Amino acid sequence: MLAQEILDKGAKARRAADALALFSTTAKNQALAAMAEALLAKQEEILAANAKDIVNGKQAGLGEALLDRLLLNEKRIASMAHGLGQILALPDPLGDILKGWMRPNGLQITQKRVPLGVIGIIYEARPNVTVDAAGLCLKAGNAVILRGGKEAIYSNLKLAEILALACEKTGLPEHSIQLIESTDRQVAHDMMQAHGLIDVLIPRGGASLIQSVVKNASVPVIETGVGNCHLFVDASADHEMAIQIAINAKTQRPGVCNAIETLLVHASHTHELLPKLLRQLAAAQVEIHGCEETCKIFPEAIPAKEDDWRTEYLALKLAVRIVPSLDAAIAHIRDYSSKHSEAIVTQNYANAERFVNALDAAALFINASTRFTDGFEFGFGAEIGISTQKLHARGPMGLEALTTYKYIVRGEGQVRV
Amino acid sequence: MLAQEILDKGAKARRAADALALFSTTAKNQALAAMAEALLAKQEEILAANAKDIVNGKQAGLGEALLDRLLLNEKRIASMAHGLGQILALPDPLGDILKGWMRPNGLQITQKRVPLGVIGIIYEARPNVTVDAAGLCLKAGNAVILRGGKEAIYSNLKLAEILALACEKTGLPEHSIQLIESTDRQVAHDMMQAHGLIDVLIPRGGASLIQSVVKNASVPVIETGVGNCHLFVDASADHEMAIQIAINAKTQRPGVCNAIETLLVHASHTHELLPKLLRQLAAAQVEIHGCEETCKIFPEAIPAKEDDWRTEYLALKLAVRIVPSLDAAIAHIRDYSSKHSEAIVTQNYANAERFVNALDAAALFINASTRFTDGFEFGFGAEIGISTQKLHARGPMGLEALTTYKYIVRGEGQVRV
Repeated sequence: MLAQEILDKGAKARRAADALALFSTTAKNQALAAMAEALLAKQEEILAANAKDIVNGKQAGLGEALLDRLLLNEKRIASMAHGLGQILALPDPLGDILKGWMRPNGLQITQKRVPLGVIGIIYEARPNVTVDAAGLCLKAGNAVILRGGKEAIYSNLKLAEILALACEKTGLPEHSIQLIESTDRQVAHDMMQAHGLIDVLIPRGGASLIQSVVKNASVPVIETGVGNCHLFVDASADHEMAIQIAINAKTQRPGVCNAIETLLVHASHTHELLPKLLRQLAAAQVEIHGCEETCKIFPEAIPAKEDDWRTEYLALKLAVRIVPSLDAAIAHIRDYSSKHSEAIVTQNYANAERFVNALDAAALFINASTRFTDGFEFGFGAEIGISTQKLHARGPMGLEALTTYKYIVRGEGQVRV
Repeated sequence: MLAQEILDKGAKARRAADALALFSTTAKNQALAAMAEALLAKQEEILAANAKDIVNGKQAGLGEALLDRLLLNEKRIASMAHGLGQILALPDPLGDILKGWMRPNGLQITQKRVPLGVIGIIYEARPNVTVDAAGLCLKAGNAVILRGGKEAIYSNLKLAEILALACEKTGLPEHSIQLIESTDRQVAHDMMQAHGLIDVLIPRGGASLIQSVVKNASVPVIETGVGNCHLFVDASADHEMAIQIAINAKTQRPGVCNAIETLLVHASHTHELLPKLLRQLAAAQVEIHGCEETCKIFPEAIPAKEDDWRTEYLALKLAVRIVPSLDAAIAHIRDYSSKHSEAIVTQNYANAERFVNALDAAALFINASTRFTDGFEFGFGAEIGISTQKLHARGPMGLEALTTYKYIVRGEGQVRV
């Protein structure tokens, strides 16, 4: 038997979702505007609630980084309100007719984009996810059940209360936005098992959270996250371009999933391009974990172990391997890739095509940085996350990822023979 | 630790899938033709293997219906071979560019349809699923790992052996088609846990099989199956059309998921249309489970209990309820629907629109039988199953449901700023 809070909120969310699906874009945008205003108007209440979390976090011995993620201030609240305004400005994904055709018996079939229904979001310490997820789900016509980290419980309760009230005041269905109040782990587990009550679960956070949801959920999950991304510098690569892309893909923001973790370099570059590139990476504070050949030409490199090829460092570290051919690079990537983002730098047409056709990943880049795997950089105007699974949505997810479709079949009395 | 057979076959399937993704439609069609030929050529071997399953089934006390599902004969083998020919004739879903656009920085992004990769199929006693699933997965460029019911193990082993060999002989990658040899339940369970080895799991069979997969899988699942479908006869309905559709939707094939299980009738029909309709249903051997009002006008009806509204009878039984309005019908359907297929018979424009907009189901019908929710009837030329979940694919699934997409991003040295 599921926890009572899950049963209650699940049933309320379903009723809200049924009603919400019929509201216009204008009505949803009014709610988003009201939600943004309410955050600014109730800043004091939010800061007071957040202060409780910060005190509790310090007592519990949370580290600096975690306390910083937890912390809200005027600027961060303004930024959350601004984010809702950006969601408001996005086109409504609903109502599009994706396909339509007529059958020989005269039936007219249309495939129409509709909301997913009830979305569950499980996340960690950052309270801004509460606002962002609520706004995105609402814009796509979904009811949302939020379950944040226990460290942020007072902040999240206050934020959810403000958002839900503002939303309801504009006439949208009550319970469109709900937050799980219990911080009991069993309740989160029951949320993952709420098959039939929740249509899809999206975990947002670190690898261990995501793995726990994937492992325990009977509700369909959209998996996001892990990126063990590669850059291959082909024999024909433009040297300056290879250096620019490698430096960008590793150092522009090393802690994110679309940064590269392994650099594969064609053996023809061993004595000219590669040493130059490694010196520039080292100058940018990147720790090199090199294959045997790499260590020979760049003695500062740490010898790479098997594990280095598998590791998502999320730090200024880079595994480097010299490979004899494009096919050897493809074989390496097939063995170790998490199928997130892979890039080649090349001037050779056949090699560019082979790389993007032979490899299986959410995004494959020719002569561009892997850092572009991102909802905003793709032009989606929003990002729910970057899907690393193959069902439903792959790669950067915009609002469309929060929708499904239904078939509407119009007839004149047709029966099946 | 997963069973060795799962680890081995998973790794082999991954290599096969990587290679298979690059084969042309022509090459795959040659393999499908060879597979069909091989089934016919090796008919004797198939019948001998099947005979073992039948003997074992009789010893194990299987019922007549199950033994019949298990049984192969010349006609059924010819039908399986014919099915492969039909799959051959279908258009290849791969390679379509679903979208493409240019970003302000000059990056060209295309979204291209590609295979899912490795598909696991878990099914029950019918050996024809072995052939059908292998053919469909192959056509869409996927490696498949099959796990059939233990009752059919000798038939399945022989079929898979013949198909895999024929496929490989035409030059397609070995291990494109594999069957789990162990009949141990733990091995099936490990298959559900083979996250990272298997990209998607599709259970094909009865409700308990599907629920077990949904509950136990960490591999993403496409859920198929349960249909508690409704037909609502609106006040404005054409009487003759309502009768034709009700009879068809209930009796044309009562044992399938797109047959109706509950009939909702507007109260204005209580004394004219409804008695006539119930008499015709009764004449077609349908057992009526009626609400209180229905029992008053049709005393042969069995009084319906709460459970009747929830039950997928899959038999010549029908729950019947008189409702005061369209909105009452919508409320009933929202409470009890499995979101498979719902139909309205009406001549009223506003009611037709409200029904299809307010209800959430894979397929919504105006003036047509729910029996049309079917891959062939939709014109897909094949049917993987009827998805009752909202992620990835909803409703009847054709070959496209066995594909995903990847983004290919072409640049000229762009880096992120």
